[in-house]
Amino acid sequence: MWCQSCKDEYEEEDAGTCKECYEEASETEEELKREIDDLRSRLLFLRLPSPTLDAASAPHSDLLLHAIPSCSSSGAGGDGDAARAPDTPAVPAHRVILTSRSPVFRAMLENEMEESRSGIIKIYDVSYDVLRAFVHYMYTAEALLDEQMASDLLVLSEKYEVKHLKAYCEKFITSKVNNDNAIAHYTFAHRHSAKQLLEASLSVLMDNMATLADRDEYKELVEKDPRLVVEIYEAYLNRQVNTAAGKDRL
Amino acid sequence: MWCQSCKDEYEEEDAGTCKECYEEASETEEELKREIDDLRSRLLFLRLPSPTLDAASAPHSDLLLHAIPSCSSSGAGGDGDAARAPDTPAVPAHRVILTSRSPVFRAMLENEMEESRSGIIKIYDVSYDVLRAFVHYMYTAEALLDEQMASDLLVLSEKYEVKHLKAYCEKFITSKVNNDNAIAHYTFAHRHSAKQLLEASLSVLMDNMATLADRDEYKELVEKDPRLVVEIYEAYLNRQVNTAAGKDRL
Repeated sequence: MWCQSCKDEYEEEDAGTCKECYEEASETEEELKREIDDLRSRLLFLRLPSPTLDAASAPHSDLLLHAIPSCSSSGAGGDGDAARAPDTPAVPAHRVILTSRSPVFRAMLENEMEESRSGIIKIYDVSYDVLRAFVHYMYTAEALLDEQMASDLLVLSEKYEVKHLKAYCEKFITSKVNNDNAIAHYTFAHRHSAKQLLEASLSVLMDNMATLADRDEYKELVEKDPRLVVEIYEAYLNRQVNTAAGKDRL
Repeated sequence: MWCQSCKDEYEEEDAGTCKECYEEASETEEELKREIDDLRSRLLFLRLPSPTLDAASAPHSDLLLHAIPSCSSSGAGGDGDAARAPDTPAVPAHRVILTSRSPVFRAMLENEMEESRSGIIKIYDVSYDVLRAFVHYMYTAEALLDEQMASDLLVLSEKYEVKHLKAYCEKFITSKVNNDNAIAHYTFAHRHSAKQLLEASLSVLMDNMATLADRDEYKELVEKDPRLVVEIYEAYLNRQVNTAAGKDRL
């Protein structure tokens, strides 16, 4: 008989669906594609022009955000200058957007806090580029990520409770977990309550227990935060017990 | 053989797909559904709280919109009061939202026009309810439509060049075209350059040419705008010629 989809001939044992189900499935696919088109067009409509591109793209802005990098990331000159804000421009933004995306900005701007009066918000421990990407996401739901940017944006979105961005970054980082970076990601995930990333990195660590203790990062972690190391061993033991119980049942 | 989708038995002549195509189609469907989930979650993120619900839902608003109904729709008392704005509240809004959705608002608010200075915009020939629905759409890309609301919003979105809303309303009205309302929709579509609605209503009119001339709306249209009637006849003749040519080719 002949397949209605690929038009190839096939034997009875290679049969997939009956004609009715094939037709229904094609209709479903068409419907899903129409829904995707509709959602995309609504997204394009709701997307706002990002105020981070140039000054002219932020008319009517009523906020200025200043990135204040942490001492360590702005150069460890040690002459006291490191704590000062470097000479980067402020990122313009709008109260209506920031308050609708982040409960932290909402609390800050809808109460009589200094930031609300002055319209100037200092964002600490963050570089200018990360702040720009953060604001850009608030307007467009889009971000261009690499691992470093995803980590920095995850930290910032956790601080300002922008859940959607945090989930987006976590998904990206989770897709990059491998044996070389699993300890680093495991520690990071713990610190920032990133459950999906925690599970993925823990799973990679458990698959490579034989070499775990040889790694420098492992030794560092034992020094710095031994409880996290204990949790790896506990999870590993737990898995072994469960696997053994599973085998017993067979 | 057995269908892998509905699990029913079927005969060889009722075969739909081979196994490989069935599996691919299932994967495609899963992928499309994941894409829909992702788009929906981005939409939810980008959607803004509508400022039309109550005053408290529009903090940081920097505009007030006033609906000024046309004389005819605000009651034909004829005592001169009809032209005054009725006692409805103003609808609050934000410059950043309105300018990003409508080139007309953009031109109005980014130049030194009276509206830009005062922050007060009068929207003429529109009821309070339609203005609220219009502003609501600017923030949410959502509207609750019936035929009247869809027509009113289409007119308003044409005036302010909010293409997305115009297309949304046109699609809704097009789905409601029937023999009873086809002349009215045909005239409306002409007046507001609604191509999809024009084609749909013209098609219904051509399917019912025998009874067209008996209708009151037809007689009115001949009086008011005979060119539109000529266009119906031209389209009808054109279709007859094409159908005849098609038959000749067979």
